[in-house]
Amino acid sequence: MNRRIVELKNRFPQGTTNFLILNNTNIVYFTGFNGATALIVSQDGEGVLYVSETNFEQAKHEVKSVRVEKLVRGENLFQKICQTVKVSVNNKLSVDSISVESWRFLAKNVGSEDFLTVSGDVVRDLRAVKSFDEVELIRKACRIADVGISVACEVIEPGVSEQEVVTEVEYAMRKQGSNGVAFDTIVSSGVNSAFPHGSCRDRIIMDGDLVVVDLGAIVECYRSDISRTVVAGKISSKQREIYGIVKAAHELAVNAICAGVTAVGVDAVARAFIGRAGFGDCFVHNVGHGVGLDVHEAPVLGPCSKDVLKEGNVATVEPGIYVVGFGGVRIEDTVRVTRDGVEKITNSVYVLGEI
Amino acid sequence: MNRRIVELKNRFPQGTTNFLILNNTNIVYFTGFNGATALIVSQDGEGVLYVSETNFEQAKHEVKSVRVEKLVRGENLFQKICQTVKVSVNNKLSVDSISVESWRFLAKNVGSEDFLTVSGDVVRDLRAVKSFDEVELIRKACRIADVGISVACEVIEPGVSEQEVVTEVEYAMRKQGSNGVAFDTIVSSGVNSAFPHGSCRDRIIMDGDLVVVDLGAIVECYRSDISRTVVAGKISSKQREIYGIVKAAHELAVNAICAGVTAVGVDAVARAFIGRAGFGDCFVHNVGHGVGLDVHEAPVLGPCSKDVLKEGNVATVEPGIYVVGFGGVRIEDTVRVTRDGVEKITNSVYVLGEI
Repeated sequence: MNRRIVELKNRFPQGTTNFLILNNTNIVYFTGFNGATALIVSQDGEGVLYVSETNFEQAKHEVKSVRVEKLVRGENLFQKICQTVKVSVNNKLSVDSISVESWRFLAKNVGSEDFLTVSGDVVRDLRAVKSFDEVELIRKACRIADVGISVACEVIEPGVSEQEVVTEVEYAMRKQGSNGVAFDTIVSSGVNSAFPHGSCRDRIIMDGDLVVVDLGAIVECYRSDISRTVVAGKISSKQREIYGIVKAAHELAVNAICAGVTAVGVDAVARAFIGRAGFGDCFVHNVGHGVGLDVHEAPVLGPCSKDVLKEGNVATVEPGIYVVGFGGVRIEDTVRVTRDGVEKITNSVYVLGEI
Repeated sequence: MNRRIVELKNRFPQGTTNFLILNNTNIVYFTGFNGATALIVSQDGEGVLYVSETNFEQAKHEVKSVRVEKLVRGENLFQKICQTVKVSVNNKLSVDSISVESWRFLAKNVGSEDFLTVSGDVVRDLRAVKSFDEVELIRKACRIADVGISVACEVIEPGVSEQEVVTEVEYAMRKQGSNGVAFDTIVSSGVNSAFPHGSCRDRIIMDGDLVVVDLGAIVECYRSDISRTVVAGKISSKQREIYGIVKAAHELAVNAICAGVTAVGVDAVARAFIGRAGFGDCFVHNVGHGVGLDVHEAPVLGPCSKDVLKEGNVATVEPGIYVVGFGGVRIEDTVRVTRDGVEKITNSVYVLGEI
């Protein structure tokens, strides 16, 4: 029996007797298979994976822990489900996530939307706590990301373009066994570095530029996420000052992490420190986010979060200061929440200059 | 004024006075900006782009054709929209795509779901017909993809792993200026090639293996998509037979394309040919799909499609035969639909062996 599916059925919302998983990453979580249309889980812990003709043979070959059923061309998933699943007001069908159009179609087919409920948080919360095996994969992805950072530090110098840095970094990570990039690699230099998601462009790195490098690898669908900021060439005192503040805020936030603390509290530690240093308006994003099969998942480490950290959460800690027209600094690690504190999974050195 | 937004407001559904765009690729289509939360377009052709604090400064810097408004932390997009947009049964708010939960929240805030309507097809159909500038970007992405295929042909040989091929191919495309990969590069060899989306693994390519290479590049958010199949080493007569059938089906489908023909008809040409050759059950996917900002977009070239091809559509033509336990062959080009026929945009040679 599939252990994750058993955990799901143990958490079925009151009145739910079947759970429909439509989100692809959730399907990967429960089955390991990327390319199915839907997974349905019954209250006895049985799973049926619906796969189109295109990927059916591959699914049959790869998926062992749930039954695989073919969706033939022209066949409608929701109609098919309604033929096999008994749904009523006391035997609800829960759905992880669904568009309003699919919801209406499904409601029509089961007879009433009172027989349906959206319960995405159940899977979100399951996924947020990582097993030993999941952490091992993230650890491998972090090792590769560390190599990416190391290569970036070797390549970055005045006269090299952002695109050239990304090219070498991604090549090195692939060579280390990465199955792709965890997200679009960011190398943003000079004034671009003041934009947290300043996409990689053809900009040539100049002497004295701040360069933010934000990258991640993938190992068997699990992702890593790390940022380092360096200066290409001579460092100014303002760059050093900002870097020092972000570095201290990063350390404070990392040290604030422990099972049982609120995510909003961890964010507040970094935010208050940066605020006291006079850069409160320049820290324009959350201090972190969960990482796993998705690069952004639970828990949310931000001022509006309702999450309480749990042992086994894996998340980023990434305070930043962004000064428009000047540049930005972000320092980010992927960490695991432990009972007593935190384990840093990314291990790259912190370097500002002299690279 | 933003030309694409004007085209949208000219196609507002009856009774719609505002259009809410939530799909990120649609937002990129209208504004060029990747990283906004929503775009709202009014019937006078004005657009307002809502951007979180994180990306607000970047959006202000990059976006010129619509007004950029900041979503501050804790502020709710839907509540904010409802404060500025007049909505009633005769002044509907159209939405391109929305989850059922957001729909309910929005309905509550505007007062009734009768004041809302989902109209995703309007944007889908706009995006399906490419302008000259869009085709130029896709053309660049196709040139880079051709280089990717050429490098794959150089690297593939018995003893090399699928992962090594992907590594070199993606490196070469980045060096040619690609902004990433259009989708997860597929290099599937031997029995793996019988799975259309056989992901790249550590499998070592063996002498006599069929190897399907499916890749694409990105240039300024526009994508390309191409597949070639090669044999590493000596070719068997069965491999040559299957390749010949797919190649002929590909040519027939390409030649069937012309503005005004049905997409289902183009699919049928390839499907009938492969069926007559005795491999009907082995062609397990559509013959093609539109390509642009997304790697899969309108039109759909398959047996269940309702699309009629239009001048300016850009789509793939990719028949395939997949024999479980033996291997697969797919031949795919990205093409542009013209008034009189078709222009192939990918230009790689067709090679089975002797690579």
